[in-house]
Amino acid sequence: MVFQTGETLRLGIIGLGNRGFGQLRVLTDMPDVAISGVCDSYADRVDKARSLVQEKCGTTPMGTQDYHQLLARDDIDAVVVMTGWTSHIEIAVAALHAGKAVALEVGGAASLDECWQLVRAQQRTGLPCMMLENCCYGKVEMQVLNMVKKGLFGELIHCQGGYHHDLRKEVGNGDIDRHYRQQNFIHRNGELYPTHELGPICKLLNVNRGNRMLRLSAMASKARGMQLWMQKHRAGEAIADTRFNLGDVVTTMIQCAQGETIVLTHDCTLPRPYSRGGLVQGTQGIWMEDNASVFISGLSPENPAHWSPEIWEPFANYDDPYGHPLWKAYQQYGLRGGHDGMDYLVLRAFIESVQQGTPTPIDVYDTAAWMAVTCLSEQSIAAGGMPVEVPDFTDGRWIDRGPALPGVYALDDVYDRLF
Amino acid sequence: MVFQTGETLRLGIIGLGNRGFGQLRVLTDMPDVAISGVCDSYADRVDKARSLVQEKCGTTPMGTQDYHQLLARDDIDAVVVMTGWTSHIEIAVAALHAGKAVALEVGGAASLDECWQLVRAQQRTGLPCMMLENCCYGKVEMQVLNMVKKGLFGELIHCQGGYHHDLRKEVGNGDIDRHYRQQNFIHRNGELYPTHELGPICKLLNVNRGNRMLRLSAMASKARGMQLWMQKHRAGEAIADTRFNLGDVVTTMIQCAQGETIVLTHDCTLPRPYSRGGLVQGTQGIWMEDNASVFISGLSPENPAHWSPEIWEPFANYDDPYGHPLWKAYQQYGLRGGHDGMDYLVLRAFIESVQQGTPTPIDVYDTAAWMAVTCLSEQSIAAGGMPVEVPDFTDGRWIDRGPALPGVYALDDVYDRLF
Repeated sequence: MVFQTGETLRLGIIGLGNRGFGQLRVLTDMPDVAISGVCDSYADRVDKARSLVQEKCGTTPMGTQDYHQLLARDDIDAVVVMTGWTSHIEIAVAALHAGKAVALEVGGAASLDECWQLVRAQQRTGLPCMMLENCCYGKVEMQVLNMVKKGLFGELIHCQGGYHHDLRKEVGNGDIDRHYRQQNFIHRNGELYPTHELGPICKLLNVNRGNRMLRLSAMASKARGMQLWMQKHRAGEAIADTRFNLGDVVTTMIQCAQGETIVLTHDCTLPRPYSRGGLVQGTQGIWMEDNASVFISGLSPENPAHWSPEIWEPFANYDDPYGHPLWKAYQQYGLRGGHDGMDYLVLRAFIESVQQGTPTPIDVYDTAAWMAVTCLSEQSIAAGGMPVEVPDFTDGRWIDRGPALPGVYALDDVYDRLF
Repeated sequence: MVFQTGETLRLGIIGLGNRGFGQLRVLTDMPDVAISGVCDSYADRVDKARSLVQEKCGTTPMGTQDYHQLLARDDIDAVVVMTGWTSHIEIAVAALHAGKAVALEVGGAASLDECWQLVRAQQRTGLPCMMLENCCYGKVEMQVLNMVKKGLFGELIHCQGGYHHDLRKEVGNGDIDRHYRQQNFIHRNGELYPTHELGPICKLLNVNRGNRMLRLSAMASKARGMQLWMQKHRAGEAIADTRFNLGDVVTTMIQCAQGETIVLTHDCTLPRPYSRGGLVQGTQGIWMEDNASVFISGLSPENPAHWSPEIWEPFANYDDPYGHPLWKAYQQYGLRGGHDGMDYLVLRAFIESVQQGTPTPIDVYDTAAWMAVTCLSEQSIAAGGMPVEVPDFTDGRWIDRGPALPGVYALDDVYDRLF
């Protein structure tokens, strides 16, 4: 059933930087995908992408620096938007209005209004619109999802996640490498990159399907990491004295309608090992990514002789009985693509949903709500940590929306009927 | 120099529950301490304490259920307050006005005004007033302090801590065991127990000595843990249906004047292993308690082949070169007292400071600021996560106050001149 080859989907790729080019390479390996158009604002990137497709697929896609030209083509069914963060929604809205299904790479929104624009464009057109949140398809995240759906953690109470990634070199050389992240870090102060952790958490908490995010407040530390890095590595250049507005560590607290709390951390400009800082806590147990452990009431061992008898148990103990069925099938099939295989899965989730006419497992409401956290956190920080309301992008539909329709890529509690 | 026996200090002990009785036992082993009075609102506890002192020291202290009677004695130099949380400050203020040096057990404040009362009482009397925050003297906390003072983490940016302790049984049986914590968990919703993690963090960040806490905001999850526990373990009793106001997980974000952020978590009513959740992050490195690891730029190994080359290094690698001198001396002397030895150290810090007439390493400004976080977090939660200002209990003195005077129990950067 899974990884089935359907009718060929004709794709346009918009945004061919590091990420876009990498994902294009993954797509060119798929037998049921045709790359019909490629677009980037830099001509050299367009040329490079056309050559890659020619080499890998034997066809030469149309190439353009103007995404409107790509959207005007009628030999393209769907587009994948992998540009800089602040243009994702503008392009996605235009694509929906042009009659294309849309997949957006991850990133945060710059205004609430553009999130609403995306929702209204999807509603008017009825076309699929999905954020490509690859971490929803991470092996660990899916195993935690499976354990939650099987009830091991009881009723969920609190979740945490973070984007803990030392990006000083990437950001510091951003002007050289034409990387949008540098300009965002220079100008903005907020939770700029929430979705890698927030996406999986929202799926655990059934956000937009019986639950929703109500409000958040955010706080930023001072900004020192980039300044010190620039002074050391770009000394003598004009950019060395650039002031970065983004605090080194940005913390965001979110309250959900069903009473759960979420804490997010953005932490990209200090030296430290990579982590997504996952933590899920319920009335029956807890999972912590940073020590790769769980404690599950009644299953995990205890030490009754100690004043605090609960003991961490390796998360790996649960790999075999609770590994996600999709991942088990994927490992049999053979992992491919970047980031330990999850990049491939999230692309397949979009492609197969469009091919089969089923709802995408991450829909426009998820996309809008997750992206909105970025601009809301900026507002909260600008107002000294004031709580700000998270809009209900479903216009009240979250109250009655049940789990997504069954599908192998579903991120709810029905997927495993299929395995 | 350290653990020196000075002139005998005559102590009155107020509060003889679990904690008070345990610490009394530690105090009766000290040759330079006399227990001259004991007090508790329950007569049986007073009797038990008098018997213990008689047995251990050969003297019988005065006993009373009214702390005013104890404070009226002129054969008592100092009192140790170990009652329920909400009476610490009332008793401490009365003790200062009665001319006694005061040590308070840990706990949070119920109002800002009582914090001010404590500060003003200390200022009027000039007597020592110290919170007995034992975790400031924890082995790990002191090693982190030493590493910070030696510059390994660079400039500090962000700290975290939590009181992660499954107390469901203690709280659930609180009415049987006469434990104040139950009534606090039933009635209040906030960061009820911040100081175990906040104390060590404030010492790292030089709070009240060149820095201060500016404002905080807090958020609480729903409360489920106690309800489920009571229904299971106290079924059929009237108390089984008690509604607990305290959210299972309470998160508090604090901004400091020098730009650092602090995140605290109160997490005592869900099943999980104990942790104080320590995390210290600076421009040169990071320490994380939950994986017992650090990453220090230039010292910790890296894996250049990986897309994220930074690798966690065991914290234990730093025990030998960076263990705190006070702890090394203590290990030679021989650990004693509860909680892995730190209970003894914090008592000695108070006793020797009073004996020698030197400032206590935790003073009234620390005590007031740390305790205030509890009532401020309650206010923030009651107001939907609104940021609230942390008062400057030093009346501006924090700007000019340098490190504490040298002393073996000091929690600043001068202690190691003494070893």
